[in-house]
This record gives sequence, structure tokens and C-alpha cells, in this order.
Amino acid sequence: MIGEILAIGTELLMGQIVNSDAQYLSRRFNELGIDVYHHCVVGDNPKRLQEALALALSRSDLVVTTGGLGPTMDDLTKQTIAQMLDLPMVNDPASEQWLRDKFAAMGREITPNNLRQAEFPQGSQILKNRKGTAPGCIVSCGQGHIVVLPGPPYEMQDMFECEVVPWLQSRTGVTIHSQLLRIFGIGESMVEHQLRDLILAQSNPTIAPYAGTGEVALRITAKAETVQQAQALIAPVEQAIRQRLGDAVYATGDEAMEKCVAHKLLQNSKTLALAESCTGGTLAGMLTAIPGISAAFLEGAVTYSNAAKVRALGVDEALLNQHGAVSHQVAAAMAEGIRSRSGADYALSVTGIAGPDGGTQDKPVGLVYIGLADAQGTQVKELRLTGDRERIRRHSCLHALDLLRRRMG
Amino acid sequence: MIGEILAIGTELLMGQIVNSDAQYLSRRFNELGIDVYHHCVVGDNPKRLQEALALALSRSDLVVTTGGLGPTMDDLTKQTIAQMLDLPMVNDPASEQWLRDKFAAMGREITPNNLRQAEFPQGSQILKNRKGTAPGCIVSCGQGHIVVLPGPPYEMQDMFECEVVPWLQSRTGVTIHSQLLRIFGIGESMVEHQLRDLILAQSNPTIAPYAGTGEVALRITAKAETVQQAQALIAPVEQAIRQRLGDAVYATGDEAMEKCVAHKLLQNSKTLALAESCTGGTLAGMLTAIPGISAAFLEGAVTYSNAAKVRALGVDEALLNQHGAVSHQVAAAMAEGIRSRSGADYALSVTGIAGPDGGTQDKPVGLVYIGLADAQGTQVKELRLTGDRERIRRHSCLHALDLLRRRMG
Repeated sequence: MIGEILAIGTELLMGQIVNSDAQYLSRRFNELGIDVYHHCVVGDNPKRLQEALALALSRSDLVVTTGGLGPTMDDLTKQTIAQMLDLPMVNDPASEQWLRDKFAAMGREITPNNLRQAEFPQGSQILKNRKGTAPGCIVSCGQGHIVVLPGPPYEMQDMFECEVVPWLQSRTGVTIHSQLLRIFGIGESMVEHQLRDLILAQSNPTIAPYAGTGEVALRITAKAETVQQAQALIAPVEQAIRQRLGDAVYATGDEAMEKCVAHKLLQNSKTLALAESCTGGTLAGMLTAIPGISAAFLEGAVTYSNAAKVRALGVDEALLNQHGAVSHQVAAAMAEGIRSRSGADYALSVTGIAGPDGGTQDKPVGLVYIGLADAQGTQVKELRLTGDRERIRRHSCLHALDLLRRRMG
Repeated sequence: MIGEILAIGTELLMGQIVNSDAQYLSRRFNELGIDVYHHCVVGDNPKRLQEALALALSRSDLVVTTGGLGPTMDDLTKQTIAQMLDLPMVNDPASEQWLRDKFAAMGREITPNNLRQAEFPQGSQILKNRKGTAPGCIVSCGQGHIVVLPGPPYEMQDMFECEVVPWLQSRTGVTIHSQLLRIFGIGESMVEHQLRDLILAQSNPTIAPYAGTGEVALRITAKAETVQQAQALIAPVEQAIRQRLGDAVYATGDEAMEKCVAHKLLQNSKTLALAESCTGGTLAGMLTAIPGISAAFLEGAVTYSNAAKVRALGVDEALLNQHGAVSHQVAAAMAEGIRSRSGADYALSVTGIAGPDGGTQDKPVGLVYIGLADAQGTQVKELRLTGDRERIRRHSCLHALDLLRRRMG
């Protein structure tokens, strides 16, 4: 099956927003085994939209449009499709009632414009919108199918996953199910090297690596008649991968490293304190972005100056003079200092040279020490990171979180 | 003039990257007065690329391609253009020498593949690449111009600004120059309201507002024969805007709020310390992302728990019990506490309810207090922010920085 993505919106052509919908749909089509050869963007202009639709239908079986479903006169995706296919626009009573209920619940009056969102080209299959007021639809014609989705990403993604994926699967009689394994501490090429035979041997499920910022993910995707059958195909492959990669596999699905650590802390009713130098608060910022973290995260000290390391963490001045702020010894003292002052179960510290300046021959940019203190003692890890200031800071945070994750088991 | 943006790269169709080049170019075209009606994306496939190029040339005067200029056999943008226009590929000796010098300087051997980057369709105008190894080119034909740019955004943007914009201006005999004014503390609609008559009255320069995350920018764009003439047109309009908006205009050009504050601190040789609660280290993280900030930023305390506020900042427990952690009084005590302990010239504090939980009728989600302490005394500002946890945290940081900026004058 060949899919094509057609985004509709003058705000894309003005550069006010980036076409992230096309990226999302492309990735999902790739996972679902649908080839994508073209993306197009046109504005809220019926003539150019109709030309783009006709061209897309001439070369693709499945055309997915995003945008142009709003209540204003600018929004004319459904109307243009109806005109092109010579179909009348008809009211869908269920959608109208749903819209009226939605507006009543919000205490807002419904206008005739809003009711346009309950009209569809005759014969459409309606797609529910759980996140907004614009239902989508699927219009089928001799040349293929047009799947009409809203533009706002969270509405579009939810509708795609909940409404379009099952429809695709019902048409093909095939269910596609996948499991994402998140990996830290091994590079993408090393992951591929360690799994090469598995990756090459598998056709169902397939194993595909993705590289992210500082971590790697593997998606295991199976095709079967039911989700259960697909899961049964995935399970042994996942097990084989976990056996090879060990605890480098830190989570599944959408659980990023900071979420993984936060959940472990909350599950185990443990508390954490941080002492950051080169990461300058970004580690605390990552953790405190998670709602509810206040039950586990007590405090952080961003000790940029040596004076702050001495006063706020109790680091011995002699240690700073003898070994320098970026040292194994000071990383240990920072973690121990914030742990004893805060009373936290765990304490993490980071000290390093994020650059671009400040490096020397002995202590180059990218040298970072991470400390972890708990009741069992203190562990320090030396990192030699590459890249710019932002990358070094980000990777330092991920390594610190990973150290704690492995300690918690 | 009608422009069209054609991105080339299978990684876009696989969803591995988002088409940010199209957004950048669209925004710039809009500023330069070039209409954009279509974006397209095709993969590294000569047949589909040739079809897309022919279609683009049939409806647009200026086709800008991004991507497909690498040294591998996959990269075939220039070759496909040559084939379509029936032009031979010819070596450009200056580009070849430049490539050889570049490789020699990197201590790397040059391969025949690399030398393909010095070949262009006959008659091309070569575009220098200051950021990478792939020069671009402009190929003109009876139907219009094809501007061939590399895909990596920082290479593409530099080449566009340094090579393509002057070429566009030389063709039209018009220089387009613009000045960006960055504004904080007034919403976009209020800015428009206050400047409505100016915006409507102006055609050269034009005034266009942009809304960003928590701030607003105005771009003043003038057309003239020379940059000096354009600047002379911009100056009185900029002055008129500054008179109306006062110190809400905090910077020009690319200077984000944290950079503006960092530069003022460094210029004045002043030091800063932070005490954060609901922003949880993100404010420290924003400032410490700036290289060289260690000369001004001493330390931050991320005091999430009340115990940490008492111990690390010296906040009076009675104050916490009487007014709660999210209060005018505690914000003041936090700023004063970190200032006296760190010895910094300025101290900022943030305490608030970022949500989604933790709000009450009296103290709803979005209630944030910002404190600023210096030798003159302590000032506290109450904010009532809306949006999700991320937005509330980000806006709290921007408001805190803005408070300090205004204090520094």
C-alpha cells in the first residue's frame, strides 16, 4: 500500500509552524508497512487543494490529510473533497448531538459555524475526536481512500491511533503490534552489532533500531491476526534481546530515563537530592518536570562556584585545592554532602567541563564525574563525553540518572 | 515572485526527521515578499524527484531544493536537475580546490565520491558552504530558477542568508533589511492593539508581530537600494515603537531573555544566586546553558521540600506554617536567604503551584510568586499563569528573568 501525506494550512506555508504531523504519520506508516513517497503542503485555497488531492489520488492508495477542519470559513478540506468527488455535504446527526453536548458541557453557545463540523461528504465514515471538536472522516472512492484528520498534533495523533489504525487493520485483516525497548549505555552501532544475527533473521517480528539524544531504542513489530498473537510473536524476541543487552534495557514504551528513575523512586518510597555543577540545574529540571515528583525529590544544590560547594555541600576546601572541582574526589564529596544535609536516601552529583572553554590538556572539555551516594557507600563514574555544551550537559544528566537506575535495580 | 520548497530525503519520508528547513525558508520567503503556495517532499529517487521538479517549475518561479548534496550515490539532486534540463555535469575547479584544502586541513584523505561535491550542472552559479562540505548552486532555465541547498539546517540557513539573499536582492535591485524587537510582559494582542495605527500605516518598513513561547517579537522590515537606506527607514519606526512599549522591549535580534540577563550581569560585573521551588532547577538550567556564565552565576538552591527551604535558605519555619510555601512572604525570604548565604549581588526566587495537582481554591494551579533581592531591598511579584505544568514553569522563569532585567535597567 502506498500512502501520501497532504497537510493543509497557510500557517505551514508562512513558516509559523513546522509540519510535525507529517513526521508522526510517516514514522507510523513505516512501522505499519505502508510506503510513503510524497509529502505535500498547500494553503487554505480550494483550487490548489483540489489539484493536490487529485495528484495524490493518482499516485497513492491512501491519502491522509491533516488540517482544515476548524469551524471557520477558511477551513474547507471536507468541502473541497466533496466538490472534487461530486458528493453532497450531509449532516451527521450523531456528530451534531455530540457537538451540542460538548458545547453545553463547556457552557458555551453553539454557532452555525460550529455545526459545520458535523457535516461530511456523503458516504463518509466518521472518525471520533476525543481531544477536540473536529471529527475526521474517511472518504472512499474508486481511486483510493482519503483519510481526513485535524491539524493539531495531539488531536491528530489520538484520532490516528484510536480510529485509523484499527480501520487499516480491519481492511488488511492484519494486526500490527509493536513494543519499544529503551536502551542506555550502549551506542546504536554496538546494539546493531550485538543483535545483527537476530535483526537479519527476523521478518515477523521485525527489529528496528532508532537513535535518540543519548539513547537508543529498538522497536519490535509483529503482524498477526490478533494483538494476542502478535504479542506472542514479540515475547521470545524481546526475551532474546534482553538476554544479550542485560540491564542496558531500561524501560519500554514512552518511559524516558527521568520518568523511569522517578517511578522507581516513588514505587520504592525513596528520596533523592542532587548536587550539580556543570549541568547547572538541568538534571533537577528534568526530574521536576514530572508531576508528583515532590514525594521523592527533596532538593538540589546548583553549586557553580567553589565557595558554594564548600558552604552548601560541605566539600572540604583542601580537596578542591588539591584535586580541582572536576575530580573523582569532589564528585564523591558533593554527593555525600548533599545526602547528609538533606537526609535523602540517594544523592547524585555531577561535576565536569561542559565547554566550550575551560578545558586543559589534563582535564579536557567533556570530562565529567558523576557521584552516587547512598547508605551502602559512594560510587563515582568518570565520563569522557564529546559534542557541544548542550550535548555534554544532556548526556551527563542521562548518565547520572542511569547510574541511579542501576543502583535501584 | 512565487517560491516553492522541495525537500529531498528518504529520512523525511520515514519520519526520522522533521522538515524544519521548509519552515525556515517559508518564514524567510514571507519576510522577503515571496509567496509560497506549495511544499513538497520526495525521497532519494531520481524519477520522483524529476517529476516533482518539473511540477514545481511549472507553477513557481523560484524552486528551492534542500538535501541530496552529500557525497554518496544516494545523493543525486544536482545530477537529476542536470538530466532534466539536459545539461552536462561539469567540475568546478575552485570548488575542487576548496574541498581538497578542507580535507587536508582535517587530515582526511579525499575520495572520488567527495569530489562529486565539486560537480555542478553546466552554467550553475556556485553557492559557498561555510558550515559543511557540500556547496550549493543556482541553476537557471527558461521556466525559472532552481536554488540547490544542502539539507542540514545550519548549513542550509547560513548558505541561504549569505549567498541566496544577496542574489535575490541583486536580481530585484532591492535590499531587504529587518530588525527584530523582542518584547516581554505584554501579550501579542495588546502589542497589536497599542501599535495598530503604526502597523496599518506602514508599508515600508512593514511591522509584523510574532508570538513565541511566553514572549512576543516584532519584525520591522524595510526595502531599499542599500542596507544603510533600509536602516534609515527602520530607525524612526523602531523609535516610535520603543516610545509606546517602553522597557517591554528587552532586546533585539537573536538575544533570548536569559542571554539578555546574562549579558547585563557580565557587563556590570554583578553576581546572581537563585532559589527555586516550582521551577525546580529550570531557571538555573537556562542560565547555565550560556557559556561563560560562571563569572556571574554563583549558585542555585532547588528547595522542593519545606525542610530544604528552612535548612538551605534559612526560611523561618513559622513563615512557612503561617503563609504556606507558596506565598509572598516565603518568596521574599527565599530570595533574601540565598542572597545572604551566597553573597551574590542579586538573588531571584520562585515558588508556586505548577500543577496539574496541588491547587486549591485559595491557591490555584498557576499561582506563582517571584522574589528579587538586592542591596536596595526585596521585591515580590505575584503571577497568575495559565496552561500546563511545562508552560507554567517556563513562564515563571521568564518572568523572574524579566524582573531582574528591569531592576538592572
